[in-house]
Amino acid sequence: MRLRNKPWAKPLIAANPELIVTDPLPLKGKWQSRFSQSAPLYLEIGMGKGNFIIEQARNHPENNYLGMEVQTTIAAIVLKKLLVQPLPNLQLIVADGRLLTEFFTENEVTGIYLNFSDPWPKKKQAKRRLTYHTFLAQYRQVLVENGQIEFKTDNQGLFEFSLKSMNNFGMHFAGVWLDLHHSEENEHNVLTEYEAKFSQKGQPIYKVTANF
Amino acid sequence: MRLRNKPWAKPLIAANPELIVTDPLPLKGKWQSRFSQSAPLYLEIGMGKGNFIIEQARNHPENNYLGMEVQTTIAAIVLKKLLVQPLPNLQLIVADGRLLTEFFTENEVTGIYLNFSDPWPKKKQAKRRLTYHTFLAQYRQVLVENGQIEFKTDNQGLFEFSLKSMNNFGMHFAGVWLDLHHSEENEHNVLTEYEAKFSQKGQPIYKVTANF
Repeated sequence: MRLRNKPWAKPLIAANPELIVTDPLPLKGKWQSRFSQSAPLYLEIGMGKGNFIIEQARNHPENNYLGMEVQTTIAAIVLKKLLVQPLPNLQLIVADGRLLTEFFTENEVTGIYLNFSDPWPKKKQAKRRLTYHTFLAQYRQVLVENGQIEFKTDNQGLFEFSLKSMNNFGMHFAGVWLDLHHSEENEHNVLTEYEAKFSQKGQPIYKVTANF
Repeated sequence: MRLRNKPWAKPLIAANPELIVTDPLPLKGKWQSRFSQSAPLYLEIGMGKGNFIIEQARNHPENNYLGMEVQTTIAAIVLKKLLVQPLPNLQLIVADGRLLTEFFTENEVTGIYLNFSDPWPKKKQAKRRLTYHTFLAQYRQVLVENGQIEFKTDNQGLFEFSLKSMNNFGMHFAGVWLDLHHSEENEHNVLTEYEAKFSQKGQPIYKVTANF
């Protein structure tokens, strides 16, 4: 998702440093200090408008959540929602997911969500896909043992690529869904904005959960 | 595919022992003796009416092919086709694929095709699915090093199960297709009867190729 920069975004972020992090480097190894409780930490890379991570945080007060987004305006949109309805177990980060191992130390993250990531459909763009092996290596580094990746997409090519990439990396599939919204084992699925839109059009949503 | 037994089937098979094997046990380790040339051996388990294995054999005279089918009448239907149009590199077997390691020795098979296998949709039937781990163990035993499994189905639940099962068994995915007939990398696809029928209805055909 791309959005035009809004002039109010940066000032709003600067005014709320207790909710949103713009310099994650000094927090490496110390993310629990951002929360009122010490708890398993779940990270969404590319949170879009935040519906997914907000609902996860609301449904699971026993966990801590981080929503990461590289685009300032999008992060500020999520921040607005948090200001209206505070969630003590959700923090936001404006940063580039490609630098994950700069921001997190080993075993610091319990689970990673990748929802409707950019498909980068051209072959020469493969290395930018968030399931490319260089990213998987970063996820493995920051995740706890048996920490899980949850990956959802409506993009067939990206899902084919991701299944191959995760398998070839030696990851272990816990679950595979080829039409998530028509599956029986789907009662806990939390919709992203994008997912709600695409599902209404009748397109299948793919999902895989896997660990290292 | 289930068919009513035809009275002509058994006599036809008995009359053509040079084309069709009904007792594969004595041939274990000696399958090349059934062909005029010694060549890599490809096996289809559950060949249905045989269109796939016949076309493969015709397209690849450099290989040897075996079509296995547990139902006598179906095997006899394929035999009829072979009598009309002989193929020196194709042999048929009436036998139960579940006994694979009784019929083949280690490294005897170069590749295995599983096309539109019975989905056995109930959970308690999982162990009958041809991608259940006990079958994968048999395939690994008879395949050459890096020998490949090619698996196609239109059944979503079976494909989800098979991806998990093959991945969890430690198999390496070479290719994954979520809609084979609308894929760019599809020029060598050979249709089964079932596939032709289902593809016309617009249903996606799934495929995975993998090795151990």
